[in-house]
Amino acid sequence: MHTIIGVMGSGEISEEEKTEAFELGKRIAENKWVLLTGGRDTGVMDAASRGAKSVKGITVGVVPDSDVRRLSEAVEIPIVTGMGGARNAINVLSCHVVIACRGRSLGTISEIALALKAGKPVILFNCISECIELFEKTGGDRVFSVRTPEEAILKTRELIST
Amino acid sequence: MHTIIGVMGSGEISEEEKTEAFELGKRIAENKWVLLTGGRDTGVMDAASRGAKSVKGITVGVVPDSDVRRLSEAVEIPIVTGMGGARNAINVLSCHVVIACRGRSLGTISEIALALKAGKPVILFNCISECIELFEKTGGDRVFSVRTPEEAILKTRELIST
Amino acid sequence: MHTIIGVMGSGEISEEEKTEAFELGKRIAENKWVLLTGGRDTGVMDAASRGAKSVKGITVGVVPDSDVRRLSEAVEIPIVTGMGGARNAINVLSCHVVIACRGRSLGTISEIALALKAGKPVILFNCISECIELFEKTGGDRVFSVRTPEEAILKTRELIST
Amino acid sequence: MHTIIGVMGSGEISEEEKTEAFELGKRIAENKWVLLTGGRDTGVMDAASRGAKSVKGITVGVVPDSDVRRLSEAVEIPIVTGMGGARNAINVLSCHVVIACRGRSLGTISEIALALKAGKPVILFNCISECIELFEKTGGDRVFSVRTPEEAILKTRELIST
Repeated sequence: MHTIIGVMGSGEISEEEKTEAFELGKRIAENKWVLLTGGRDTGVMDAASRGAKSVKGITVGVVPDSDVRRLSEAVEIPIVTGMGGARNAINVLSCHVVIACRGRSLGTISEIALALKAGKPVILFNCISECIELFEKTGGDRVFSVRTPEEAILKTRELIST
Repeated sequence: MHTIIGVMGSGEISEEEKTEAFELGKRIAENKWVLLTGGRDTGVMDAASRGAKSVKGITVGVVPDSDVRRLSEAVEIPIVTGMGGARNAINVLSCHVVIACRGRSLGTISEIALALKAGKPVILFNCISECIELFEKTGGDRVFSVRTPEEAILKTRELIST
Repeated sequence: MHTIIGVMGSGEISEEEKTEAFELGKRIAENKWVLLTGGRDTGVMDAASRGAKSVKGITVGVVPDSDVRRLSEAVEIPIVTGMGGARNAINVLSCHVVIACRGRSLGTISEIALALKAGKPVILFNCISECIELFEKTGGDRVFSVRTPEEAILKTRELIST
Repeated sequence: MHTIIGVMGSGEISEEEKTEAFELGKRIAENKWVLLTGGRDTGVMDAASRGAKSVKGITVGVVPDSDVRRLSEAVEIPIVTGMGGARNAINVLSCHVVIACRGRSLGTISEIALALKAGKPVILFNCISECIELFEKTGGDRVFSVRTPEEAILKTRELIST
């Protein structure tokens, strides 16, 4: 069984955030982990998938839609749910570790909460302070806040090996 | 079609919170609205349902389980999903207004985020400051913070009539 | 807790089938059972709901859509899933008994199979012979074939009381 | 994007059926298609996954459970839904072609119906006559009945190339 790392984040992001998400996806693939995202052709989902694909990683996308019309072209294995927002629960259950980018979109916040509730470790990557404060208070000792892709990968490796 | 008001909150609550949730449920039923909760026999779900039932209101419970063994006895209409946490998305889509109690449980936080993402108004009832701050920042103008059942009902009535 | 009876069937039906589904819904409500359907404004879902509403019964509709634009106006309590065909699994889990009309639409066939798999009794109402033969072979002793609304209600009452 | 072929079938099968399902999975992988199954460590799911893995194919398993305790050890990429039978809808939406083995288990029958409803072609592999008759009547021109793994693969190739 592969180790699956989820990268969650907004569908609407800045160029700087694209660069970061691409880097995260690339490093996940370099570590021979499978990348799982929300699968669409936009935002963090697309950028992280492109990063992983750039080094021939395996990319899984769990899309809310009932077809692949809005699928990122960097997703190799689309899981088509047709379930809308309810698919967020599948995203987090399928991952060993969830990396949540920025923490300012409502979809991402729901995924952080669902992941922690399901007992998954969550790495808050460059998240806004309000997001960090809420989940450090409610999420127990499975919440980790980092600022760079390097730190995110180091923490992921540590979490997987325990 | 009935107006459906959701009351979301933790499965583990204090006596004071039980009293508040009971009161919320009771007033929802007195206004002839249908109460929708997560349906289980514990916490806010159970207390709000008991409040509504005490004045012969209609109580719907959308349970995560695949049977009714853990159903609140105050729920008249159980919707059995067998979907675990993914049912949180159904809870919020089915409501006209979502009232979230305290905002310190991960399930409740996921429901606030999913509700706002789906375009539903959310009333934060006696929520912790970290919760209020995150959603006032990310949820736009559909987030309202109140402190008493009276205020929650007044705001609900206002939201429904617009 | 109310007894919930599901009526499943095609979205495209003849006038004769509309009359039958209306009659089924009406008798379900007269027995003080809650009617649960797929909730849309067409076919068996709509006709059965109208029948139940004509005698002031409680009508629940579990819709595949993410809003109520296609909801039958005879549905009093819409459960909005946004899950497409995956909501068929919820329909059957929530019912004490499932009545499947005609058995010639693919949605209905999936619901018969899911209901039997979940251990629910299924009444095949005026179903095509191919449907009856498959489920009498695969569904064990929880499959019952009837031809009239009277028979369907008698069998339902018998199944509930055991 | 990879071409994804689903193989669906009972969790309880004979030695002969195991051999067939293994063969199907192996040939799917030899064609460089991704194999998608229900993911559990039993029946057709397990046997087909083992076949694909024996030639280093990519194996995806969409499990109904909320963890991987019952996962086939031949599944490389588990998608954990925690949704029970509602995950059957995801299985079929994610596949280009669905191959249904024997057609005598209720889960498989629900997947055939959901796949056809979603517009997917379905290959009935060695299915019982009652299953073939129902779906040839209700499924239109997307239903194909075959008797051997060779035929199943030939038909799959034909369906993908059109």
